Amino acid sequence: MYHHIKKLMFTVRVDKPDPRFGNMLLEQFGGANGELAAAMQYSIQGINCDDQACKDLLMDIGTEELSHLEVIGTLARMHLKPMKKDADAAEHDPLIAIAGGGGVALCNSMGAAWTSDYLKITGELDVDLRSNIAAEARAKIVYERLINFCDDVGTKEALQFLMTREITHLKAFSRALDNVSSDLFTIGRIPPTPKIVDQYFNDSTGKGDNGEKDMSGPWNTAAEITTVDAPALAEYQVTSATPKAAKIKDGNGSKQKHTM
Amino acid sequence: MYHHIKKLMFTVRVDKPDPRFGNMLLEQFGGANGELAAAMQYSIQGINCDDQACKDLLMDIGTEELSHLEVIGTLARMHLKPMKKDADAAEHDPLIAIAGGGGVALCNSMGAAWTSDYLKITGELDVDLRSNIAAEARAKIVYERLINFCDDVGTKEALQFLMTREITHLKAFSRALDNVSSDLFTIGRIPPTPKIVDQYFNDSTGKGDNGEKDMSGPWNTAAEITTVDAPALAEYQVTSATPKAAKIKDGNGSKQKHTM
Amino acid sequence: MYHHIKKLMFTVRVDKPDPRFGNMLLEQFGGANGELAAAMQYSIQGINCDDQACKDLLMDIGTEELSHLEVIGTLARMHLKPMKKDADAAEHDPLIAIAGGGGVALCNSMGAAWTSDYLKITGELDVDLRSNIAAEARAKIVYERLINFCDDVGTKEALQFLMTREITHLKAFSRALDNVSSDLFTIGRIPPTPKIVDQYFNDSTGKGDNGEKDMSGPWNTAAEITTVDAPALAEYQVTSATPKAAKIKDGNGSKQKHTM
Amino acid sequence: MYHHIKKLMFTVRVDKPDPRFGNMLLEQFGGANGELAAAMQYSIQGINCDDQACKDLLMDIGTEELSHLEVIGTLARMHLKPMKKDADAAEHDPLIAIAGGGGVALCNSMGAAWTSDYLKITGELDVDLRSNIAAEARAKIVYERLINFCDDVGTKEALQFLMTREITHLKAFSRALDNVSSDLFTIGRIPPTPKIVDQYFNDSTGKGDNGEKDMSGPWNTAAEITTVDAPALAEYQVTSATPKAAKIKDGNGSKQKHTM
Amino acid sequence: MYHHIKKLMFTVRVDKPDPRFGNMLLEQFGGANGELAAAMQYSIQGINCDDQACKDLLMDIGTEELSHLEVIGTLARMHLKPMKKDADAAEHDPLIAIAGGGGVALCNSMGAAWTSDYLKITGELDVDLRSNIAAEARAKIVYERLINFCDDVGTKEALQFLMTREITHLKAFSRALDNVSSDLFTIGRIPPTPKIVDQYFNDSTGKGDNGEKDMSGPWNTAAEITTVDAPALAEYQVTSATPKAAKIKDGNGSKQKHTM
Amino acid sequence: MYHHIKKLMFTVRVDKPDPRFGNMLLEQFGGANGELAAAMQYSIQGINCDDQACKDLLMDIGTEELSHLEVIGTLARMHLKPMKKDADAAEHDPLIAIAGGGGVALCNSMGAAWTSDYLKITGELDVDLRSNIAAEARAKIVYERLINFCDDVGTKEALQFLMTREITHLKAFSRALDNVSSDLFTIGRIPPTPKIVDQYFNDSTGKGDNGEKDMSGPWNTAAEITTVDAPALAEYQVTSATPKAAKIKDGNGSKQKHTM
Repeated sequence: MYHHIKKLMFTVRVDKPDPRFGNMLLEQFGGANGELAAAMQYSIQGINCDDQACKDLLMDIGTEELSHLEVIGTLARMHLKPMKKDADAAEHDPLIAIAGGGGVALCNSMGAAWTSDYLKITGELDVDLRSNIAAEARAKIVYERLINFCDDVGTKEALQFLMTREITHLKAFSRALDNVSSDLFTIGRIPPTPKIVDQYFNDSTGKGDNGEKDMSGPWNTAAEITTVDAPALAEYQVTSATPKAAKIKDGNGSKQKHTM
Repeated sequence: MYHHIKKLMFTVRVDKPDPRFGNMLLEQFGGANGELAAAMQYSIQGINCDDQACKDLLMDIGTEELSHLEVIGTLARMHLKPMKKDADAAEHDPLIAIAGGGGVALCNSMGAAWTSDYLKITGELDVDLRSNIAAEARAKIVYERLINFCDDVGTKEALQFLMTREITHLKAFSRALDNVSSDLFTIGRIPPTPKIVDQYFNDSTGKGDNGEKDMSGPWNTAAEITTVDAPALAEYQVTSATPKAAKIKDGNGSKQKHTM
Repeated sequence: MYHHIKKLMFTVRVDKPDPRFGNMLLEQFGGANGELAAAMQYSIQGINCDDQACKDLLMDIGTEELSHLEVIGTLARMHLKPMKKDADAAEHDPLIAIAGGGGVALCNSMGAAWTSDYLKITGELDVDLRSNIAAEARAKIVYERLINFCDDVGTKEALQFLMTREITHLKAFSRALDNVSSDLFTIGRIPPTPKIVDQYFNDSTGKGDNGEKDMSGPWNTAAEITTVDAPALAEYQVTSATPKAAKIKDGNGSKQKHTM
Repeated sequence: MYHHIKKLMFTVRVDKPDPRFGNMLLEQFGGANGELAAAMQYSIQGINCDDQACKDLLMDIGTEELSHLEVIGTLARMHLKPMKKDADAAEHDPLIAIAGGGGVALCNSMGAAWTSDYLKITGELDVDLRSNIAAEARAKIVYERLINFCDDVGTKEALQFLMTREITHLKAFSRALDNVSSDLFTIGRIPPTPKIVDQYFNDSTGKGDNGEKDMSGPWNTAAEITTVDAPALAEYQVTSATPKAAKIKDGNGSKQKHTM
Repeated sequence: MYHHIKKLMFTVRVDKPDPRFGNMLLEQFGGANGELAAAMQYSIQGINCDDQACKDLLMDIGTEELSHLEVIGTLARMHLKPMKKDADAAEHDPLIAIAGGGGVALCNSMGAAWTSDYLKITGELDVDLRSNIAAEARAKIVYERLINFCDDVGTKEALQFLMTREITHLKAFSRALDNVSSDLFTIGRIPPTPKIVDQYFNDSTGKGDNGEKDMSGPWNTAAEITTVDAPALAEYQVTSATPKAAKIKDGNGSKQKHTM
Repeated sequence: MYHHIKKLMFTVRVDKPDPRFGNMLLEQFGGANGELAAAMQYSIQGINCDDQACKDLLMDIGTEELSHLEVIGTLARMHLKPMKKDADAAEHDPLIAIAGGGGVALCNSMGAAWTSDYLKITGELDVDLRSNIAAEARAKIVYERLINFCDDVGTKEALQFLMTREITHLKAFSRALDNVSSDLFTIGRIPPTPKIVDQYFNDSTGKGDNGEKDMSGPWNTAAEITTVDAPALAEYQVTSATPKAAKIKDGNGSKQKHTM
């Protein structure tokens, strides 16, 4: 059950309404990485969750995001209000101006309606926690960009608060993931096929912008990794879960030739 | 530039077409966690990426996902084909049967059109890598569920291959993230507000299904964490980026009272 | 600010999970007339509302709908859970089964993602109240239909409760509308053009299914109403806000002839 | 069966095309409260309607809205035409300029595609009439806002005509509702649960912006209404359609205490 | 201006309602290739059209499609009606059953809301006519498939009528295209770059399912066509509208030099 | 199987990034007629295609469109990059600026997410080829409009290349259609009803903008065509696949009277 208290979690203050910035703020109200997306993703994961402790965590943060939705909505409302009467302001978001009378709507900064297609909910706890960590990282960077585009001191303070909380949540979900998952590379119960799981497919070859041929990093140089060079051109093909012999290069970089 | 070789990455074999299962397979063709979503998310991140090594990684895996799209599409097509003529088969997906003539379409198992709202692309490399790790975890679990619903040996083998590759990619993106990010709790450049970042809000209280009052875990018991109990009821409110004094509980669990 | 209590507003009891009915229940979780739509419509109207009393009303009911969302979500979750393992159950909603692992998602009974296109928010208080009255009427009838399709006693009781509350809200919004609006036919501030506003256009003519030619009712027989018969065929055309003379029939039914 | 006459219902005259305003006009062409939404909502309700008189009403007005769609489309077309060649004009709606060559499209002022998610059709006549009353009220206010943003005399006259007709329809639907519904608070056939239906839940408490604690109005002070104060905090919970005793406050305002 | 006559263009007769087939029929009511899509595509093209004769053609057929929408809607309604009360019938389309009370809605057979994303409108007459020819071809084949799935004689007759009309329209649009376009390979006003326009890129190579290497047809064997073999692998690259020399091979495998 | 080469098909050069034009370019990246739509439409038709030669054609062009997607994406990225830091640039597309950090996203120029609703795939080869011809014609005209709005020489050259290729594809699909279809007016296998198929319905009558009553063209004057004048007003109605006698005008123009 929910209760609402008529007080914002963060006191919103706007010295000079800026409709253009108000339009940008909608990203965090009705946008893909915004507060409703966060509130719904966590709360619905919570409804589906059988682990009581994590259910509590999900409802805690899901509920906090509802309070954030209210803060960002109130803030955006203050910036958008001039759109009701001022045609130049209205130009920044005619949907808000004409259909909404200068009030907030569950849309992003380009007027796209909020959709639950934004949400990532699988009912698999450790997978959901990974989705939440990624969601918080995205929300953090969006708040940072909004702060960088903002001139108003009061607005910046509110955004700084909300941005901070995303880091709090990122940490909480990360700790929960560490707690429920003994191996971050294991998902679900069916194990991957050995050998195939350790093949890195070099599917993009040739000289990139910087002139080097192919780049390397820990993803294709780790000890257990073997690289399959250009599998399409090598006509790599697997016919059962146990892969047939494929021409591969080993981790130390000595390649085998592939003729097309 | 792309080139296509008329050979599947995994040889598809279907002993007995099952239109009901073919419909389910569409989740990984045109669904939210499917192969087109993966291909597009990584390839577009790659176009936006200024780090040459990670750009290469993103294009490698993005391209592999296109090959997976082709495998899953061919597999689904074989299961869906009877829909063209068989009314009972058609019932499992009338859109495929009537609009598509038993061919695959970029829809999920409930006929929803694929949308780029599924994608998570921020242009911030470490954030995108987190989104990719989560995406691979989701794809893995969806393949696992499909395998569990599948009776056909040939189909299961193909799904096992595709599922395996998601783990491969999960590991690759994880290694890349470790490589580019010195601190997994730091996102972007603006630091979070001290103290506020270490407050855990206990926004959901009362006795849960198991009768215990509030659950704990590393997310609210870690050393630096202080818990704010029921901030709404405590009328917690911040007026600047530096939070005012709030009644909080410290990490060792001794709560302070909050009157409404 | 929101707070969540770990107790449902209505205690949910399901004797025999029915995945087919669980799928139907999603209409009120993630459907067009469901609880999230209600919660968001009223709460966002509340954020936009400058009338303090009505703002309170909107937040009261918007918050209650969040509690309803939790009840219907928990109920649907109990009915859908068998989908995770049972292929026959999964057939009723493969998206829930495969992508969601038998957990609820913000979709309707046909798997369509929830969208804020469902919401009606104009920022004009009396208009919004009309939209809310209509929304509650729709929600009521949807709950009634669900009850009629339901065999499970515990589920029926929960639906009866939720259905009842829609009537409560319908009354509350109706009373609020009566309170703020002195004339239910006046919307906004610009008056309609006299005479034109009292013309009923008989745009659909001929014998209907019951053989009678044209039907009448208070909408075209009220005292001040004049009927314009087949304006397209009469080549009715207005060139300014003050309409030119048009061939019309008066309310007592004596028609004038129109040649094509 | 439909017939089209090559004459507009209202003669459109534009002295000076204004692409910015043309973009705004799209709200009433392809927007949520626009003419296609009205035409489709009423006409499809008409197809579903078993009451011959109301079916006629619905087809009358549904058909008139098609004529309005043509008027607003022609008007918008005249304002948008310069977008084809003028880059500064194109900026107001690049989709119209580049994909549409300066012609109208079924989109709103922010380029969102028209969707039948806008429509409210339940097949329950009195419910549909309520949805139509609300729809007309929304359309009226949107036309009023467009008029307020408009400088062109000819355009204003056309909008005044269309706005006037919305009031005509609002009245017609209201009269029809009065005619078919003996009690505006009764929807469908299953009665609500007594007592619960008369409880007002005070779900949002605390001091609002104006410093007062909780607001009242006829919705919570009507004779039969009892107010349940903060049901979440009072841990209000119902276990059957007949609610258990709950701590409530009666209509005269004397509250009972709730401990958390 | 539009007028509606209360008579269907084709008299609908249903001997035995079949809710499963009624659900399928929705493809042509609210589906991507259905009657509303046709009506809107042609009518809006008509509003945008400056050629008076073709404008008339577009309005003629656009209006006829509205009459078809009414026929298919009425037909679907008759098949769907049992869904209101029969739970087994409801299973074929719970959205229609529960949200719609067994009435038609602007959705396709999988419950997806109609969207103007289905429409193809460019404001370039000859391009629009090509889109219309393709649209009629799609509608024809969808009707054919519906007829093949249909057991009811009366329903089949109605579908045969509607299917026939699509061919009529296909012919009309084809004749109009021949009339307005002197060269079917010329679109717009900017000419394509010579030579490049005559290169066929063999972007998909290798042995297909039938074992042959690469297939040919008039598209790559026409007199003026030169084939660029595997441009990605040949690292084909153009740096200006006049391309630099690229290595290409002809169909029998021996590479020729091509200066472009 | 796909392989990617780290070289663009067309070398992209931008002298002066123009965020406003970058936003427009998104039409061809993530818009309805853009490169992803083309790539997916042809490639998925290819997966569904049983004709080996046409399957090859479809995969050839589908793959080329992926290379075009990369070119247009890289080009748009260069124009959009300033949006990350420049608020005035950001105004042209706040979604790209704030959610995407100045990187490309799969959206059109108005921020609408790419959707597979754009695609036309029926699994009927000759129908699909017609859809492809129309798609290429649309893409050509969109590129032409972009060129007309573009000031940058390097960008214009890239667009000229891409525009040229659309004509190449238009010709290829046209030749394939000629090859597979002996009669362009025959679609599928069920023949249309004679006589009805040769009736042109004059559904839009009256004086158009130019004062003439009804326009004619080869569509209603061809030898086998008879015109049915205003069928709705003539109460034209068919009751079986074999039409009843209807009052029609023959091709030479002498009309018969219709009384309403």
